[in-house]
Amino acid sequence: MLRLARLKGFEKLTSVDSALTTFLSKLRTKRLAPVQVPIHRALGRVTAQDVVAGYDLPPVDRSAVDGYAVRAKDTFEASQFTPKVLGVTESEEVGQKEARQIWTGNPLPAGADAVVMLEHTEKVQNKIQVWRPVTPGRNVSKRGEDIHQGEIAVESGTRLKPQHIGLLAALGMTQIDVVKKPRAAILSTGDELIDLEAERSRTQMIDVNRPILSGMCQVLGAEAVDLGIARDNVDEIKAKIHQGLEKAEMVITTGGTSVGYDDLVPTAVNQIGPPGVVIHGIAIRPAMPTALAIIQGKPVILLSGNPVAAMIGFEVFARKLILKLLGIENEPRPKLKARLTRKVPAALGRRVYLRVRILEKNDEFLAQPVRIKGSGILSTMTKANGYVMIPESREGLDKGESVTVHLFDKIGA
Amino acid sequence: MLRLARLKGFEKLTSVDSALTTFLSKLRTKRLAPVQVPIHRALGRVTAQDVVAGYDLPPVDRSAVDGYAVRAKDTFEASQFTPKVLGVTESEEVGQKEARQIWTGNPLPAGADAVVMLEHTEKVQNKIQVWRPVTPGRNVSKRGEDIHQGEIAVESGTRLKPQHIGLLAALGMTQIDVVKKPRAAILSTGDELIDLEAERSRTQMIDVNRPILSGMCQVLGAEAVDLGIARDNVDEIKAKIHQGLEKAEMVITTGGTSVGYDDLVPTAVNQIGPPGVVIHGIAIRPAMPTALAIIQGKPVILLSGNPVAAMIGFEVFARKLILKLLGIENEPRPKLKARLTRKVPAALGRRVYLRVRILEKNDEFLAQPVRIKGSGILSTMTKANGYVMIPESREGLDKGESVTVHLFDKIGA
Repeated sequence: MLRLARLKGFEKLTSVDSALTTFLSKLRTKRLAPVQVPIHRALGRVTAQDVVAGYDLPPVDRSAVDGYAVRAKDTFEASQFTPKVLGVTESEEVGQKEARQIWTGNPLPAGADAVVMLEHTEKVQNKIQVWRPVTPGRNVSKRGEDIHQGEIAVESGTRLKPQHIGLLAALGMTQIDVVKKPRAAILSTGDELIDLEAERSRTQMIDVNRPILSGMCQVLGAEAVDLGIARDNVDEIKAKIHQGLEKAEMVITTGGTSVGYDDLVPTAVNQIGPPGVVIHGIAIRPAMPTALAIIQGKPVILLSGNPVAAMIGFEVFARKLILKLLGIENEPRPKLKARLTRKVPAALGRRVYLRVRILEKNDEFLAQPVRIKGSGILSTMTKANGYVMIPESREGLDKGESVTVHLFDKIGA
Repeated sequence: MLRLARLKGFEKLTSVDSALTTFLSKLRTKRLAPVQVPIHRALGRVTAQDVVAGYDLPPVDRSAVDGYAVRAKDTFEASQFTPKVLGVTESEEVGQKEARQIWTGNPLPAGADAVVMLEHTEKVQNKIQVWRPVTPGRNVSKRGEDIHQGEIAVESGTRLKPQHIGLLAALGMTQIDVVKKPRAAILSTGDELIDLEAERSRTQMIDVNRPILSGMCQVLGAEAVDLGIARDNVDEIKAKIHQGLEKAEMVITTGGTSVGYDDLVPTAVNQIGPPGVVIHGIAIRPAMPTALAIIQGKPVILLSGNPVAAMIGFEVFARKLILKLLGIENEPRPKLKARLTRKVPAALGRRVYLRVRILEKNDEFLAQPVRIKGSGILSTMTKANGYVMIPESREGLDKGESVTVHLFDKIGA
């Protein structure tokens, strides 16, 4: 342990929570500016302000069924054996002992206060027989029963789902203010790396981090700006990071963050600074060599070169920042409780992100750890469909223990 | 009940399961043709065939850490107090008592069988002191440990996530065969409807079903073809459905399916047929007036005009078919078990789709029913984040009962 202290860097690891708190408080990341888009292009975008209903929804009392608009009291005591007989009218107003045919969605005519379902009537010439009584308001969608004028229909910071788009359309909105898409510039570093598209020898390593992290940005509604691959050279790395800072709200690098490379990327970042690297070395597994930096007030996140570690580092730090840029304080992944299928060791003092696969058995969810080590092993991420966070205070988890699983998205497959 | 029998249609409701089975067996929907896309555009697409690894991954033994490649046995018995001393070499092969510096991802040089982490060494001129012994294979990513040549890396029918893209890239694939995007043509019907963009009076009803269902298609990776609004006129509806059948693999209509409109859309569909309408009236709430039809071998799904009922009908029937066209047998939504916050009545013999909002309290999930009735009330869908299926055999659910919630996507917000 004495000798470890001679190496700079990781003798002191920062806890995940404290790293996030420090980083976010120094950054004071603000939500990006709003931009107006047509609602048919707003799916998945995030609202930039509360959307207030400009009118009641429905705007008038409407029939909720197909049938006849009536005065409810004219139907009281109606039955199959002693139907009430009403005259069918086509005038604007329904008078006493009158009924007017009405379809679902039609405004309720004046005079009427209820609708008798078509199935409970029979038309005989210009009259109808009503077999069932209705109470006032029956089968009527009351004005404002969905949303009242002035109410908040969709809150600021909502990621728009199809049903939100429907609600906005119902409120007559053709345009909506959403938050601009955050841009994250992504740089891979390493002499050993080669672009997927390039010719290569069998021992060269295809860079998979840029495609993966670009995809993760896209899923969150951010835009990835590709900075390519930088060689293990401080000047080249600096030039690329400069480019990224010009083009994007944040920069994400992978590789060159452990002690081995003489801290190439941290060195580059510190030369551009200040303040440069704020935190280096996190008490997390995988993703321990992650560093968090600030240049020109913008976040620069230095991830491990190992793809799984890079993904976990992105999940914990970059995702949080992208959401902040979108004005979303917290967007938890779908999660569930499951029983762990086997004992799992962990590292006291480190937060472990354990990849698991969810199985359903006897109406119960089981979480099967995919593999604990091997942060380079990408198939652990394709086999898993979620992860369990093992807190710093635990040396491991027991077989059969109930755990919270954060899902990548769906279960199964 | 006697009199109900006079009305055609809904005196007999088909159960959800039997409707699906009948419909799917008559349709024999096949997966669409494959299409090749570059992998950087493949996120969210569905693989059209098993992807077999063309080589081992990693293709060679690689170092998993930064450090020195060594022969493990040369480090046995090393300790902080009695370090082993090895000569640093730069030759292709590591000989006895030799060590060669190596970075994460570099191929292991010949002769070496393990890597000592940099932190466990100290360089003294052209030698290193090794403080910890390593066993053979230690800190080495063995050739093929991620995936072996010939193994299936990604199965056919997989919806590609960022990690799949990464794995495909690692395997050197620049292109991938994915299933063509299914196209669903969407038609709204009803004299009362008006397009969002059109000028309108306060009593006219903005059509929200097309924007909602288009969004649901998009989320599933299908393309929506907009057929606009048809008036309540059989010929107009027929013409629009004809258009839809030409342009898309399936047609979805909303409105005009209940008994009230004289079954306008079913009539149109039957005139185009055969076989036309296969099932009309489903034992489901909401979405009871849903009809399932086949024209020219293509599915035509007749949904209710009520937006919430239309969404549930889409979820149960259209979603299933879109997935089939994508070659996905089953893609369950994320789901969890929760405790119901209150008693909920249901209808014996009907499957009820109860919208709920998930709350988290004392490390437990609670499902709060949003509202049971009102299939026109869109805000029930924006307030809910999932649904509970109440089976046909139940008259209701009890307060505190454990239920399975199918999530729209995330929890909270």
